[in-house]
Amino acid sequence: MPSTDHDFVSTLPSALRRLRDARPLVQNITNDVVMNFTANALLAAGASPAMVHAPEEASEFARIASSLVVNIGTLTAPSVTAMVGAAAAAREAGVPWVLDPVAVGATTFRRETVAKLLEEKPTIVRGNASEILAVATGVRAGRGVDADGASSEVADVAAALAKRTDSVIAVTGAVDVVTDGTTTWAIANGHPLLTAITGSGCAVTAIVGAFLGARVAPLEAAAAALVLVGIAGERAALDCPGPGSFAVRFMDALAAITPEDLAAGARVTRA
Amino acid sequence: MPSTDHDFVSTLPSALRRLRDARPLVQNITNDVVMNFTANALLAAGASPAMVHAPEEASEFARIASSLVVNIGTLTAPSVTAMVGAAAAAREAGVPWVLDPVAVGATTFRRETVAKLLEEKPTIVRGNASEILAVATGVRAGRGVDADGASSEVADVAAALAKRTDSVIAVTGAVDVVTDGTTTWAIANGHPLLTAITGSGCAVTAIVGAFLGARVAPLEAAAAALVLVGIAGERAALDCPGPGSFAVRFMDALAAITPEDLAAGARVTRA
Amino acid sequence: MPSTDHDFVSTLPSALRRLRDARPLVQNITNDVVMNFTANALLAAGASPAMVHAPEEASEFARIASSLVVNIGTLTAPSVTAMVGAAAAAREAGVPWVLDPVAVGATTFRRETVAKLLEEKPTIVRGNASEILAVATGVRAGRGVDADGASSEVADVAAALAKRTDSVIAVTGAVDVVTDGTTTWAIANGHPLLTAITGSGCAVTAIVGAFLGARVAPLEAAAAALVLVGIAGERAALDCPGPGSFAVRFMDALAAITPEDLAAGARVTRA
Repeated sequence: MPSTDHDFVSTLPSALRRLRDARPLVQNITNDVVMNFTANALLAAGASPAMVHAPEEASEFARIASSLVVNIGTLTAPSVTAMVGAAAAAREAGVPWVLDPVAVGATTFRRETVAKLLEEKPTIVRGNASEILAVATGVRAGRGVDADGASSEVADVAAALAKRTDSVIAVTGAVDVVTDGTTTWAIANGHPLLTAITGSGCAVTAIVGAFLGARVAPLEAAAAALVLVGIAGERAALDCPGPGSFAVRFMDALAAITPEDLAAGARVTRA
Repeated sequence: MPSTDHDFVSTLPSALRRLRDARPLVQNITNDVVMNFTANALLAAGASPAMVHAPEEASEFARIASSLVVNIGTLTAPSVTAMVGAAAAAREAGVPWVLDPVAVGATTFRRETVAKLLEEKPTIVRGNASEILAVATGVRAGRGVDADGASSEVADVAAALAKRTDSVIAVTGAVDVVTDGTTTWAIANGHPLLTAITGSGCAVTAIVGAFLGARVAPLEAAAAALVLVGIAGERAALDCPGPGSFAVRFMDALAAITPEDLAAGARVTRA
Repeated sequence: MPSTDHDFVSTLPSALRRLRDARPLVQNITNDVVMNFTANALLAAGASPAMVHAPEEASEFARIASSLVVNIGTLTAPSVTAMVGAAAAAREAGVPWVLDPVAVGATTFRRETVAKLLEEKPTIVRGNASEILAVATGVRAGRGVDADGASSEVADVAAALAKRTDSVIAVTGAVDVVTDGTTTWAIANGHPLLTAITGSGCAVTAIVGAFLGARVAPLEAAAAALVLVGIAGERAALDCPGPGSFAVRFMDALAAITPEDLAAGARVTRA
């Protein structure tokens, strides 16, 4: 069994301190289901959310944002225009950006949109196993937004995708995988109740964007976000009466976790 | 006073077991206000929600969904296209679908949209008394999304509408009515706090879709959903400090209710 | 130090009674992030929310609403059409309306939209200090949705803007300012946790609309809403474990506050 990567874990407190000091302005073009939950998760983590998604302003705003998060959960024709334009503007302005290819395998519209977005070189792509498989293979995989595959099995696919796209790939599941194609971490934080509410995956992606916006390096930003959300899920699940209470306690935990808690609770191994 | 319909009530546990075993993929084209609440209610009840509402993908997705829920709470021109297209695709593919004609009496746009949707033969229509009256008569009724009439008084209107449209009609209120034009049930579960939060009616409609997606027959699916939501409301209301807490506890209760609880708590009589 | 304005404070109970008796139908064209939270806040306060924002129906509905709330948090081209049309219809029909110029300084699209909306003569404009400054000066101010300036310092700007536009101006912050250009009140209710969740400012604006819809005069309506939301925030913050719990308790408090509580807790001074 691989042992904890103490070198990385020891850097987690300073990453969270940097996020809370910088209070990065994170632009979100995200789905209609989780917009409120995502904005509150960003606030709780220490970032400043800006849900700016109209084609008329998304690109203009991307140039002044600390980072950009693009989530395709509920695409529309105008939102695709906004996403592609904002991603291009972010790339041009050197603003890091994260792609969440929600349910990309489910429809042609989603696959085509993700193909366009990949051309704008996301800094990080965050999905569940079936989504990352669908991005890597271009083939329909998974029936919807739920994770089907075991994340640990897709580590090889993720590493290859990271190399090919020059992005960091983060795959969430029972055990998360983060890779840039060279270094690969497995993160064992989290709790099954995170899958009992909508938006926990989208919150991870947004918080990845928050660490990026605070100028934490991509591989470390992705891993730090997964550890933070994972520990928040573990705390929220303690004696929890159900998914309604879990969502509330998850927000409380995100805000309460200290930089030191992050290092103390992290379960990160090098694959 | 009519007595409990024990024959039907005894079938409720197997209906809920079927829902949780099947974990049906319920496509929702619903309103912007309740999208998060509806997705979480579906997860808590045991279904897998998919909020797929863009015209570019809604029809494609309807063919692979277990069921479709259409809710007109916040219509837009593109969402009307998506609704009509998805309903037609569902009908063609034999996928059952539910219509929630939110505030149909309030504007011309809503009345015209509902007229189009009725042509696609919804399996079930779920509304409050004023909405079902407006659907039945085509006349403006009610000023907004609140229920005005007493549901029990609209049982005759609902039964006639069920016969005319060949749909099951579910009317929610202090006492709910479910009818296919031949069999009519009155359901006395629920709590006034359900009307103190937004989205409880929309959650009922979505959970009707979940039972349909698990291949429970339409009349039984509608009644089972009303009983489940009603009992969840009763539980959530116990010693409840207010509407914020009620919404949280309602989700907890939806997830905690067992098949046996459903039969034990049901208050269903034959009208 | 100025002393409490007892004359005004003594009118607060009747204002809240009027709101709860009238149960005004408040039309909201608001942003996608806070729609659910706003609808629930209106219900908790005692109003009847109607989230009607499609261009096809917004103007028609504005003529039958008790009041209209326009919030530019997530503009789109169709929503701008709906906003301008509904504001014009409200003005024509004598329906009072409130403008919330969210993050108006952030993009050209927002500045241009607010300029159009001001032509339709809002009854009240509610924003944070940077937003009101941006409205008053037409110049970019603030980087996003967060408040930057101290509200008390913008009292003069607000009073001048009120005179110029013939609107009541409400500026929220650590201390709120409400002015019609002649009478100016400072309101010291509230709690820092209100800025730890998304949508508290939008809820204030909507509740301003609720008081207006109950035919409370504009200056008093704005001040009553700020006091109500401020006291609800103070109550919700007691022994509060974090922002998730705060949002839940805030709703509970909004519903529980009595007319007498409002007068007892108000901290309103004449500037």
